[in-house]
Amino acid sequence: MSTLPLPADPEADSRVRAVFDDIRATRKTDFINHLWRALAFDPPLLERTWAEVKALMAQPTLLDPLTKEMVYIAVSIANSCSYCVHSHTAAARAKGMTDAMHAELLAIVALAAKTNHLANGLQLPIDAAFDCSQPS
Amino acid sequence: MSTLPLPADPEADSRVRAVFDDIRATRKTDFINHLWRALAFDPPLLERTWAEVKALMAQPTLLDPLTKEMVYIAVSIANSCSYCVHSHTAAARAKGMTDAMHAELLAIVALAAKTNHLANGLQLPIDAAFDCSQPS
Amino acid sequence: MSTLPLPADPEADSRVRAVFDDIRATRKTDFINHLWRALAFDPPLLERTWAEVKALMAQPTLLDPLTKEMVYIAVSIANSCSYCVHSHTAAARAKGMTDAMHAELLAIVALAAKTNHLANGLQLPIDAAFDCSQPS
Amino acid sequence: MSTLPLPADPEADSRVRAVFDDIRATRKTDFINHLWRALAFDPPLLERTWAEVKALMAQPTLLDPLTKEMVYIAVSIANSCSYCVHSHTAAARAKGMTDAMHAELLAIVALAAKTNHLANGLQLPIDAAFDCSQPS
Amino acid sequence: MSTLPLPADPEADSRVRAVFDDIRATRKTDFINHLWRALAFDPPLLERTWAEVKALMAQPTLLDPLTKEMVYIAVSIANSCSYCVHSHTAAARAKGMTDAMHAELLAIVALAAKTNHLANGLQLPIDAAFDCSQPS
Amino acid sequence: MSTLPLPADPEADSRVRAVFDDIRATRKTDFINHLWRALAFDPPLLERTWAEVKALMAQPTLLDPLTKEMVYIAVSIANSCSYCVHSHTAAARAKGMTDAMHAELLAIVALAAKTNHLANGLQLPIDAAFDCSQPS
Repeated sequence: MSTLPLPADPEADSRVRAVFDDIRATRKTDFINHLWRALAFDPPLLERTWAEVKALMAQPTLLDPLTKEMVYIAVSIANSCSYCVHSHTAAARAKGMTDAMHAELLAIVALAAKTNHLANGLQLPIDAAFDCSQPS
Repeated sequence: MSTLPLPADPEADSRVRAVFDDIRATRKTDFINHLWRALAFDPPLLERTWAEVKALMAQPTLLDPLTKEMVYIAVSIANSCSYCVHSHTAAARAKGMTDAMHAELLAIVALAAKTNHLANGLQLPIDAAFDCSQPS
Repeated sequence: MSTLPLPADPEADSRVRAVFDDIRATRKTDFINHLWRALAFDPPLLERTWAEVKALMAQPTLLDPLTKEMVYIAVSIANSCSYCVHSHTAAARAKGMTDAMHAELLAIVALAAKTNHLANGLQLPIDAAFDCSQPS
Repeated sequence: MSTLPLPADPEADSRVRAVFDDIRATRKTDFINHLWRALAFDPPLLERTWAEVKALMAQPTLLDPLTKEMVYIAVSIANSCSYCVHSHTAAARAKGMTDAMHAELLAIVALAAKTNHLANGLQLPIDAAFDCSQPS
Repeated sequence: MSTLPLPADPEADSRVRAVFDDIRATRKTDFINHLWRALAFDPPLLERTWAEVKALMAQPTLLDPLTKEMVYIAVSIANSCSYCVHSHTAAARAKGMTDAMHAELLAIVALAAKTNHLANGLQLPIDAAFDCSQPS
Repeated sequence: MSTLPLPADPEADSRVRAVFDDIRATRKTDFINHLWRALAFDPPLLERTWAEVKALMAQPTLLDPLTKEMVYIAVSIANSCSYCVHSHTAAARAKGMTDAMHAELLAIVALAAKTNHLANGLQLPIDAAFDCSQPS
């Protein structure tokens, strides 16, 4: 149950149609997922959000596409965002994540969470050796 | 200010010494960071935690070492663990993370957090197309 | 699926009935939502929780009612509480939140999450100019 | 650096003095920690917060005092609240938490965080056997 | 909807069968819950995770079994892990948690969250009296 | 201690200078806070982040400026971002937030966190009356 109606005919708005056309062209698919349909209720928010996702996740950048999806999944798990865990796990699978890579990703996310909680419980001072704040 | 004293002479305990020796040998350095020194207050917890970190982060696995550090940083940011952000940023730098890669990592973590909050605010239903729960 | 049974006849307990009567009178509706029905399993917890919600959210205070609901939604999104996102979005709508206001609220929550993650990734020192700890 | 000045003479306000007197009497100490001094900037908020802490944490209830402190520490770690981790670790130590108990508490908090992240990454359906929502 | 298929016949793998046999023997029940079935997709991850859960949660340790479950629930609530809240609430009930104990646990978790947010909003300096970092 | 050096002369880069000039002109001050100085290590990330902050927070929009700062503080507290709590509390103060408004904001954030944890602990089903997903 979403907190606002998914619009029946979002592309009646020309700004929404332009974004949806770009999503389809960029991703080479007719599928428009719920996030974009929901954001159609506010075309400027839709435009800005898609522009950012496109630039970082749908176009070539420095990091490889699968690494980016795995980082995205990691953050989504830690923030407990069910929708984003599902959508980016599906994206990672489409980009070649195997069972073994998925298992290792989950193992590292879980280990990080474990030591995050240990370190926050211990309230450790930062080691001087970890100081990256000085010009090298 | 930590929540327990960092021990003055942790290696007086032979189990602690064995773990610290293994940390030094595995990492090829004499440096033992605060997390391990603090965990020395309970040798079994120290042994189990190091065994897991060693197996996943300090030995070759399926994912490459730098990808693993970036995933670790991502989780640590989302969980607001200052110590782990520092220690794993230093580790990623040591493994070759450049300024440009660091910037892109932070940009993706921030974008993921942004859409996590949008999706949690919208309470979107999962698209059927994202269903990875059926055998392929 | 809740973690305890929603009681069939919670108002058989006179303390519960008194709270439910006050909820109905304060909100001018017969509707008692699941949170209060569930808390009926422990009347003192129900009483204290309702007293606090009533004082801050159901009675006039310094901040206007819609601002308070938007702050409540913001926290509930960040804490990933699906129930509270739903209940307080409905409350904000009832108090006049339009589509455009909802979109702007979500945009600000998402932007805050984005810069929260950037700042936690950068581990920035607090600027002296932000120091509010000295008497003016 | 706090986000508001800690007042120099908070007990000049009679409502604040009454709360501080009750804190000293309840805890049998002259020490008033920063949380209460900061909340003195709004006496009603100070009164309500202390009343709740007193009722649940400073008076006998069903759960024993040390168990309550350990639950409090666990939540504070997961919410990354440095102040509360420190204050409640000190309180737990004062109530008898030994090194070994502290280590086991941290181990369980860390394990819970680990499986929390695994389960959120796997998006598991709830087992019917865990259903506590039906009257027994 | 999980993010990977729950395997139809996980015990065809001998390592999985060995873990499941140990779960059944340790817990004295034929029931294997979804977490373990899902983790069967990666036997080493399954083995390591069960070994840790068994050692801390299914065997006698310093803290009593019900206290450990309550700490586990507290972390799972704060991390917004629906699966773990359900599974560990059921476990705590099986180990004797009454309605009144459940209510008090939830009240303490909620109070901790409240003061966590107050303290994080106030950005309080740690009181010197809470310093546990010096040897006693 | 930041995770990268704050550059000594960031405005030597013309793209950085252009952003800093816009920050000074928009905010009518010579002060450039650490977030922008740190982001200067990657001019495109700096440009995009400032563009978004400027559009939503530094220019007139539908919601009033103080409401927006209070929502921003609320999210930053829940995400435990010390830097953002400080910077946006200072901004809210500059825009007119009084002690009484600050206290009420913190009280609502804390109450929301409290009921978030209660509702996540109870795993409540959403009331049909809260359904905002149908067109009205």
